[in-house]
Amino acid sequence: MQFDPTRLNFDANGLIPCIAQDHVSGEVLMMAWMNAESLERTLQTGAMTYWSRSRASFWAKGETSGHVQRLVELRVDCDRDCLLALVTQEGPACHTNRRSCFYTAVRDGAEVVISDPL
Amino acid sequence: MQFDPTRLNFDANGLIPCIAQDHVSGEVLMMAWMNAESLERTLQTGAMTYWSRSRASFWAKGETSGHVQRLVELRVDCDRDCLLALVTQEGPACHTNRRSCFYTAVRDGAEVVISDPL
Repeated sequence: MQFDPTRLNFDANGLIPCIAQDHVSGEVLMMAWMNAESLERTLQTGAMTYWSRSRASFWAKGETSGHVQRLVELRVDCDRDCLLALVTQEGPACHTNRRSCFYTAVRDGAEVVISDPL
Repeated sequence: MQFDPTRLNFDANGLIPCIAQDHVSGEVLMMAWMNAESLERTLQTGAMTYWSRSRASFWAKGETSGHVQRLVELRVDCDRDCLLALVTQEGPACHTNRRSCFYTAVRDGAEVVISDPL
């Protein structure tokens, strides 16, 4: 079946969550949101392009920072309401300069920072 | 810092997305939603407990199917609006009986099913 970016189950705001995972290490790097057009741009350019809810604008990841995310393979979940993008990540994915946004673990009821900025 | 499940950035519906990842293989199994109480139940019981938006009820993963998900470690992202749960998954995570919900890949513009039911 041909893939049509507009035929996903977007939420009331026209958005769908997209998980970015390092395609080699399997590390989950971040989760951000896409609308149909940002997904189309991602597929056309190969550069992960999200929709920034705070700025209400397209967000070509790494456009200003240089920390580009290249799409290796897109996956769609069973309910068609979540995306998984296997990517190659240039440098840090997180705005804190860490490789992954998920650098805080909950251990014995306390928050523990488990990775340092690159 | 002590972790407080109520001090996350929940959405307008009081929900936060939670990505479940196999803690050994790194495979991303699924994404589902939690509210503060389902997260508290998850931390108390060690069994992943989501909030079912369609049924508007708590969803102790595997309670009826036996495909239980045990929490190994919880992680919180930089914006505190997404969770990553490292888990051990009993059998399939997906209701289609596949290990992961992300069994559809987009390759050369077409949807390709890349894994079979267990």
